[in-house]
Amino acid sequence: MSKFWSSFAQRVDPYTPGEQPRDQKYIKLNTNENPYPPSIEALRAIKGDCNDLLRLYPDPNSTALKEALATYHGVDQKHVFVGNSSDEVLALAFMAFFVQSKPLLFPDITYSFYDVYCKLYGIEHKTIALNDALAISVEDYKHENGGIVFPNPNAPTGRFLALAEVERLLQDNPEVVVLVDEAYVDFGGESATALLGRYPNLLVVQTFSKSRSLAGMRVGFALGSDELIEGLERIKNSFNSYPLDRLAVAGAVAALKDRKYFEETCQHIINTRQDAVARFESLGFSVVPSAANFLFVSHERVSAKQLYLDLKERGILVRYFSKPRIDNYLRVTIGTDEEMTTFFEELEQCMAP
Amino acid sequence: MSKFWSSFAQRVDPYTPGEQPRDQKYIKLNTNENPYPPSIEALRAIKGDCNDLLRLYPDPNSTALKEALATYHGVDQKHVFVGNSSDEVLALAFMAFFVQSKPLLFPDITYSFYDVYCKLYGIEHKTIALNDALAISVEDYKHENGGIVFPNPNAPTGRFLALAEVERLLQDNPEVVVLVDEAYVDFGGESATALLGRYPNLLVVQTFSKSRSLAGMRVGFALGSDELIEGLERIKNSFNSYPLDRLAVAGAVAALKDRKYFEETCQHIINTRQDAVARFESLGFSVVPSAANFLFVSHERVSAKQLYLDLKERGILVRYFSKPRIDNYLRVTIGTDEEMTTFFEELEQCMAP
Repeated sequence: MSKFWSSFAQRVDPYTPGEQPRDQKYIKLNTNENPYPPSIEALRAIKGDCNDLLRLYPDPNSTALKEALATYHGVDQKHVFVGNSSDEVLALAFMAFFVQSKPLLFPDITYSFYDVYCKLYGIEHKTIALNDALAISVEDYKHENGGIVFPNPNAPTGRFLALAEVERLLQDNPEVVVLVDEAYVDFGGESATALLGRYPNLLVVQTFSKSRSLAGMRVGFALGSDELIEGLERIKNSFNSYPLDRLAVAGAVAALKDRKYFEETCQHIINTRQDAVARFESLGFSVVPSAANFLFVSHERVSAKQLYLDLKERGILVRYFSKPRIDNYLRVTIGTDEEMTTFFEELEQCMAP
Repeated sequence: MSKFWSSFAQRVDPYTPGEQPRDQKYIKLNTNENPYPPSIEALRAIKGDCNDLLRLYPDPNSTALKEALATYHGVDQKHVFVGNSSDEVLALAFMAFFVQSKPLLFPDITYSFYDVYCKLYGIEHKTIALNDALAISVEDYKHENGGIVFPNPNAPTGRFLALAEVERLLQDNPEVVVLVDEAYVDFGGESATALLGRYPNLLVVQTFSKSRSLAGMRVGFALGSDELIEGLERIKNSFNSYPLDRLAVAGAVAALKDRKYFEETCQHIINTRQDAVARFESLGFSVVPSAANFLFVSHERVSAKQLYLDLKERGILVRYFSKPRIDNYLRVTIGTDEEMTTFFEELEQCMAP
């Protein structure tokens, strides 16, 4: 603690991202990155814009990207907000909508950054336990609240909540913002963007980091009603005018246009995931049904923490959370088929008596 | 106003950046960009890293950039913080240090984002009037305060405050953070980094947007004591883990290493500025002494606002602020020699009777 720190700096409990080793010696199945490279069109567009114009500020409105997203999702440009990763979009959304006198609701097992934002802004919150199948039960959200946020599919479970259930939450809570964090939706979920026109309290957040293979470029976005997007713009323009650099915008626009590559890689990952489920089950793991690019697995007789450590020693990174209810689970990102073959070979050796 | 907005979203008064026309038809002397392109080494490094690895998250600590900055400035890596532009660094610093019970002090005529941050976070502040020469008078800062912030050179005046005066502020205010915003220091100022070892309350903020010609890539940084950098890291890691993308880091590291190009372009701009001062004075303008890459000028008999509009019509953008005390000034960024020749030709025509 320093005498110079404000109440903000004092009360925070910062987020810990998954390990990002600076060498290349690991098979990285720990941070839900896409195992396939970005669209070649995205790389071409970035290189094309890597020129003398980098001396100039970007468009503060990132209009080119908003236009491309509006076209893609069939909405008006004024219903699109863009930011430096979906984490930044979430950070701004928490500030814009969830600093309320009533508590924010989110699942007890979920993306751990939500809790970090609450500490940062001093937001009171109440976690709602997932049911025994590690699923969100919408019934349990009938509490007085200042907003609701959850990932769909949820992380780290991978479970998808049906849109009809999402719609019930929106109907039950018309006075507060319901934020659906769809970082993983392209791997088998169904986007709540379909509900946008009918619910002014709905904010959908997505990212280019997973299904678009652009984690290295930091692009996220939100879709919502006029008033929600305006609220986000007000905060963003009071914080940092130009969070998206020229190359991030160029890459994201091009990635969005290369629909064929996007669909192929998503489908490939879904197929690999199905094979991985079978392999895990054949080894005696229980596997939470996943609509994401990762699996959340547990074994009755083998310690997840020990497996995490043993796999790391063998050059494979997976994610282990030392948290109540999930401290015997591993979250394993779906890699290439070759990576998964190696992963299961090593896993079997770790489990050998 | 929307029922969904938090107190944050309600009370803000967002910043308005200078115009960024999407076409190229203007001579842009309005946002203090560098008229010269980024170092060819920076462009090469960015292109070199524009590859399949963009599918992976960046290093959340941006270690490569911190190392390069630490070496360049002769400090330890733990005294370096990096962010998505100096605006983001400032936004995080205001949150980390200036949310205090006592008012923040800054000049009445200064970078207009300071006021925006205060509104965002609900920070009480007191502006201290520049003296009649539009200079900061350190004597006038003897008020009880929760921190002090000012640009050096100041913007939009361009005036530089001597380091001995900066040191007096640091000595007079040992219990609060004194933030010296050195966005323009490389064009003739002297950095307060020279004082770093002796004042744990000093935070120096700089940017790659001006002297490094990388406004399009969004890279800023801060240098300060262990406890100030740690305070910034705590907030940053509670907001957005990876604000700097892979290419921004690659470009910034390479730009920093190309010292020769940096020094040549800065010197060229300083020379052009000296010529511009003489031209302005020959046309009857008064020119505030500038150590920045812009000039702040006023004419007794000609309306600044009208000149701004007339110049825009002639394809030249400069910056006009409709604010008390400076509403008859124009801020003119130093362009290339060719751009300045055109600028003065057009200016003379605007002024012709």
